Formats: sequence, structure tokens, C-alpha cells
Amino acid sequence: MSSVRVIQVQENVFAKNDREAERIRRDMTSQGTFFVNVMSAPGSGKTTFLTALINSMKSRYRIGEMDVDIESSLDAQRVADLTGVKSLQIHNCGLCHIDADMTARALSEYDTKGLDLLILENIGNLVCPAEFDTGAHKNVSLLSVPEGDDKPLKYPLMFQVCDLVLITKIDTLDYFDFDFEKARERIHALNPKAQILRISAVTGEGMDRAVSWFEGEIAAVKAAV
Amino acid sequence: MSSVRVIQVQENVFAKNDREAERIRRDMTSQGTFFVNVMSAPGSGKTTFLTALINSMKSRYRIGEMDVDIESSLDAQRVADLTGVKSLQIHNCGLCHIDADMTARALSEYDTKGLDLLILENIGNLVCPAEFDTGAHKNVSLLSVPEGDDKPLKYPLMFQVCDLVLITKIDTLDYFDFDFEKARERIHALNPKAQILRISAVTGEGMDRAVSWFEGEIAAVKAAV
Repeated sequence: MSSVRVIQVQENVFAKNDREAERIRRDMTSQGTFFVNVMSAPGSGKTTFLTALINSMKSRYRIGEMDVDIESSLDAQRVADLTGVKSLQIHNCGLCHIDADMTARALSEYDTKGLDLLILENIGNLVCPAEFDTGAHKNVSLLSVPEGDDKPLKYPLMFQVCDLVLITKIDTLDYFDFDFEKARERIHALNPKAQILRISAVTGEGMDRAVSWFEGEIAAVKAAV
Repeated sequence: MSSVRVIQVQENVFAKNDREAERIRRDMTSQGTFFVNVMSAPGSGKTTFLTALINSMKSRYRIGEMDVDIESSLDAQRVADLTGVKSLQIHNCGLCHIDADMTARALSEYDTKGLDLLILENIGNLVCPAEFDTGAHKNVSLLSVPEGDDKPLKYPLMFQVCDLVLITKIDTLDYFDFDFEKARERIHALNPKAQILRISAVTGEGMDRAVSWFEGEIAAVKAAV
């Protein structure tokens, strides 16, 4: 029997990505910046949530935002217009995710020194972004009420890799059949440590708890410096 | 200067995929089956729409359904339970799309002879599935009101490759800021030939026009046999 050489391309790709991500994380920790990666399906309310979050925190913290989209610059512009913070649009040229190398290239264009909080708004996609460590300290995933409580069953990796799940658009509960308890059970079956918060960026409900989570994480990074 | 050899891996991958897709399409046409690929973001209402569509058409047409998900079998089971038609669950093992080769393997497990309509419910993702011709005659894309009218600007390829756009969940219009005219302009700027229909699978509004579109396409494939 002849010997067959097997090359594990995928593992090598991820190993290289993980090293680069670790380097980014170390740099962010050493400069006292909490770096957070925010992911969800398209239309879950990432930009609306982040705009409300930044406006609640910007008088007390120095905040920066980077926004990944295929080719438009709508979200970065919207965040910049509505909050006044510095926002960078990253065009990933048709790709379905952003990896640590792409994040590092974006960071080389953006002076993040002195920031307390740097937010990466990832591309709207529940599948691919979850596969790549971006170098963020924490991953946040949004699940909107109109999408349905079955999404953790269908996109499990996303809910495995996130530290915080924000159930968004809770002001529309009357219009949709969404069971919080089922959603919670499904998320915790995949990821028992995930924190879950219910919010509406429109009415403001639950926003105080989301702000507290971000403040706690900023304090944790500062304590580690 | 030494010469550099450039290999165009991506083009080769797509060329091979396109040949396989063309073969599937020819087979489907020759057996008189209209094969349609249904795509959207997670939670746009694909399964709800397809269940309502199949129930409206099943007394007059022989219909089959194939459902792509990463690892769950929820949607295929739901379609089978609610409509009684034969439904096949395809697990794509963590991938973000389905290509023609995967479709061909699924078709080899599913006797589609004699079907008037075969529906492929693609994985919930507005980015990757649009890149791969599955061998379907037509592509349908759903855009739900809660997602927002800006999605064509942010996920242009999806709206370029689709023949029909269904704007779904129009029963929730009072709750969301969604401008039909803006959505229409943005879709037609990318794809002037795309048909656009507004529907609610919950109230039934617009479902008659969607059924007519499917009936017309079935007739067109039968006429080409």
C-alpha cells in the first residue's frame, strides 16, 4: 500500500489566524483598550444597538468603532453621524467574514491608542464570522425577536463562541412568536457560560444592563494592564 | 526578473461548479421539474413562506423540498409535518453555502422524477449562497420587513443573482421603519429585471401573486421539455 500524505489546510489557516488574534489581544490589553467583536444575522439591530450604547457611554469613555461591510459604508457613516465617535469602514471585498489578519490591517489604519473601548461591528452573517478569532477580548452576538427562538439550534457555532447574547427588538414581542425560555435553554445547552440580556434599543429597555456589562469588561481589561 | 506563475483557484472552482450546475438544470428541464433555490438571511421566514406556498399548490402539483442546514433537521421536519410533502434535510457540516456538487449529491438520494416543483431551501445567509449556482432554474430571495430596506445596499450580490425578491412579514409594517419604494429602487439599481412581491405568509396577503409566479415558472419549464 502506498503512503498517502494528508495536508490539513484548514487547521494551518486557523492556527495562523489564532496567533495573529492573540497578538492583537495582547496589544489591546497592554494599551488598556477593551476590544469587542459584535456579530449577528443581517438586520438584527447591531448598528442601532451600538449607536445607543455609544451615546450612553461616550461622556465617560473614549470609544472607537470599526464597521465591516462588503462594499457599502452606510453603517460606519450612521455610527459617526449619530454618535460623533471616530468610525472606520472596512470593506472586505465580498468575503463573508473578517479574520485576525484583516483586523490587524484595519488597526494599522486606525490610531486606537488611548481608547477605553474599541468595537468591531462584524458583517451580518450567523455562519462564517463565528469561525474566525478576530483578536477581540469578547464576542457579543445579537439575536432579534423577529428572527425566532430556534436560531441557536440552527447556527450553533455562533452561540458557542459568544460571551454575551443580546436578545434585541423586544419591543416587537407582541408581533412574533418568540419564547425567551426556549431561547435561553438552547443557548445555554451550547454555551452554559453565555450571559443573556434582553434589550430594545428603541425603547431603551434593558440598555442599562448592557451598558453595565461593557463597563465591567472595560474595568477588567484596565485591571489586567 | 524571475517569472511568477499565478493560479486562479477561485475561477477554476466556479467554472467546475457552473458545469455541474448546468448539468443539473438540463436534467431538471428534461424531466419537466421546475427547480428553485430559495435564499435569505436567517429568520426572514423561508420555512413559513414555503409551508404556506406548498399548502396552496399541493393539490394541483407534485412538489418536493430539500432543506439545507448546518446540523439541525428542524426545517425539513417542519415542512414535512405541515405540508405532507417529501422533504430531505441536507446537512452541510458547518459550511456557509451549498454548491452544485453538494446539490447533485443530495439529488442522488432523492427521487425527483415526476415532480412539477422542487424547492431548495438554502442556508440562512445573505452572503455566501449567492456565490454558487446550485443548478436551480431560478433564484428567489426573501427580505423581511424587520431586517430593513438597506439590505440590498449591504448584500448586493444576493440581490443581483435573484429573479424574484419576496418582501416578507409585511403584516409587521407598523412596527418597523421600512420604505418599500427605497427597497425597490435599491433592488432595481442592482438588478433591473428582478420581480418584487410583498407578502405575509401569516395573513396570506400577496400569497396569490407568489403562487402565480411559481405556476408560471412551472409552465415555462414544461413548455421547454
